[in-house]
Amino acid sequence: MTIIPVPAERLIYAMDRSNAPLVTVPDGSVLTFETRDCFEDQIQDAGADFVTLDWTRVNPATGPVFVEGAQPGDALAVEIQHIEIGSQAVMVTGPGLGVEGDVLEHPTVRVYPINDGHITMGAVKIPVQPMIGVIGTAPAGDPVPNGTPGPHGGNMDTRLIQAGTTLLLPVEVEGGLLAMGDLHAAMGDGEVSVCGLEVPGRVTVRVRVVPQCRWPLPMLHTDTHVYTIASAVTLDEAAVMATKQMSAFVQAGTGLSPADAIGLLSAAGNLQISQVVDPLKTCRFELSLDILSALGFTPER
Amino acid sequence: MTIIPVPAERLIYAMDRSNAPLVTVPDGSVLTFETRDCFEDQIQDAGADFVTLDWTRVNPATGPVFVEGAQPGDALAVEIQHIEIGSQAVMVTGPGLGVEGDVLEHPTVRVYPINDGHITMGAVKIPVQPMIGVIGTAPAGDPVPNGTPGPHGGNMDTRLIQAGTTLLLPVEVEGGLLAMGDLHAAMGDGEVSVCGLEVPGRVTVRVRVVPQCRWPLPMLHTDTHVYTIASAVTLDEAAVMATKQMSAFVQAGTGLSPADAIGLLSAAGNLQISQVVDPLKTCRFELSLDILSALGFTPER
Ligand SMILES: [Ca+2]
Ligand SMILES: [Ca+2]
Ligand SMILES: [Ca+2]
Ligand SMILES: [Ca+2]
Ligand SMILES: [Ca+2]
Repeated sequence: MTIIPVPAERLIYAMDRSNAPLVTVPDGSVLTFETRDCFEDQIQDAGADFVTLDWTRVNPATGPVFVEGAQPGDALAVEIQHIEIGSQAVMVTGPGLGVEGDVLEHPTVRVYPINDGHITMGAVKIPVQPMIGVIGTAPAGDPVPNGTPGPHGGNMDTRLIQAGTTLLLPVEVEGGLLAMGDLHAAMGDGEVSVCGLEVPGRVTVRVRVVPQCRWPLPMLHTDTHVYTIASAVTLDEAAVMATKQMSAFVQAGTGLSPADAIGLLSAAGNLQISQVVDPLKTCRFELSLDILSALGFTPER
Repeated sequence: MTIIPVPAERLIYAMDRSNAPLVTVPDGSVLTFETRDCFEDQIQDAGADFVTLDWTRVNPATGPVFVEGAQPGDALAVEIQHIEIGSQAVMVTGPGLGVEGDVLEHPTVRVYPINDGHITMGAVKIPVQPMIGVIGTAPAGDPVPNGTPGPHGGNMDTRLIQAGTTLLLPVEVEGGLLAMGDLHAAMGDGEVSVCGLEVPGRVTVRVRVVPQCRWPLPMLHTDTHVYTIASAVTLDEAAVMATKQMSAFVQAGTGLSPADAIGLLSAAGNLQISQVVDPLKTCRFELSLDILSALGFTPER
């Protein structure tokens, strides 16, 4: 199958229904998105001047892609086949940024080499686990800056959005208008300093239209688990949203009562944190496909 | 070594410096706590009347144990050797309880059989993973009801507090006054319905005094990871506290700067949810011992 390139030749900074499609592709296409890092590759070494960066050029996404046949009410299934990343990773933090932003006195810029499948942070070697920080479709309403997550996806900074998984995103406008960027060579849950190991790269995905998708979105499938993902101003709200979305999914798919669905989630599901540092915070709820299967429910991914 | 029994013959409902010791033991003793479930075993079948339960008898803990030599400023290391549980598990939920408490119209009581290492919830079999819901020492200040978690431990509902792990708790009053209860046959992160799979049982631990412990407490060690644990009114606050506690621990143990410590946690640590349904909510921060070891820091457990 031909792989359709989605070059980083024009970047977008908001998920916006008025963004003109960069490419238009048939349902089922395989695409390779070329992406810049979250600073649009402005930081190449630790001596970069944090203050004079062009802050209008952060969290660029590549796209959008118009998927033929995608109509409002459908979902786009984005099967992430492969993520290739650059050879060094950037991290920054500083006053007002991240969980320790109240005690940091000046910005810090770090650049770490990546080789042989590891990022080297001084004496620590971290296994490369590439993931997509920003991935979304265009909302029907107001544009959403790429730094913010929401029902349309966006800056979810969810480390499980990696090769081998399928992300279901809502189609709110014709063609969906899929875009992505902000790859991380790795990150931990929470993204507590305000960033992951930021890298440019190339992401190969297959996009598929799921007609009239009734599931709560965004939703992520791995080989073993399904996740609801929700973002809100507070972590408390995001936690409730992700849990209620999974409860609704389980009730709809299995016929369990609300009480038995939430009991099952309490006994055997996991409420998890994706990130706590973006304008909205992101939680996810994890449930094993084996449990759904025992209840006679095998959701398509 | 003689195992000292701590019978469930007198139960406590608050961690309180004025609780008289049930037993007094030397530093290094091995003890078996006999525990009632969180409803003090009042629910034996699904027909139990939720409304007429004696609600003054919830979250009983067994103890307290006075550990000789434990002085304020020390820690108690509780090495959890073995957890034995009853043969059925109780779950409840209802209006005002848990994440779906706003939509539930009446209380639900469920009792699930446990055998061959599984809890059977209808068609779903969940592997038994026994854990301790309530475990703590007496605070120096006001008593804390057992339903509430805090710096002294208490109702942390952290599913990793299981056999094979070591929990470090603060000693705030002479002897520490360790007590525990509220075992779960299993639970998921979040405890979203308001409970785990509630069981009575027996917990065998070794207690050890760590003189003048300078680490942020409570802290949990597994064979592979270390966790800070923090509780607060909001999940957002608990998340910040757990992260800052781990950052302080890493800085103190490795000499990393605040910026590099938080960067490391962002890249390779995980901010996780323990529970979102108790009077205070509980988060934990996970970091691998391999990473600390690469930085020349091997914390004693
Ligand atoms: Ca991001
Ligand atoms: Ca990023
Ligand atoms: Ca972010
Ligand atoms: Ca509990
Ligand atoms: Ca409990």
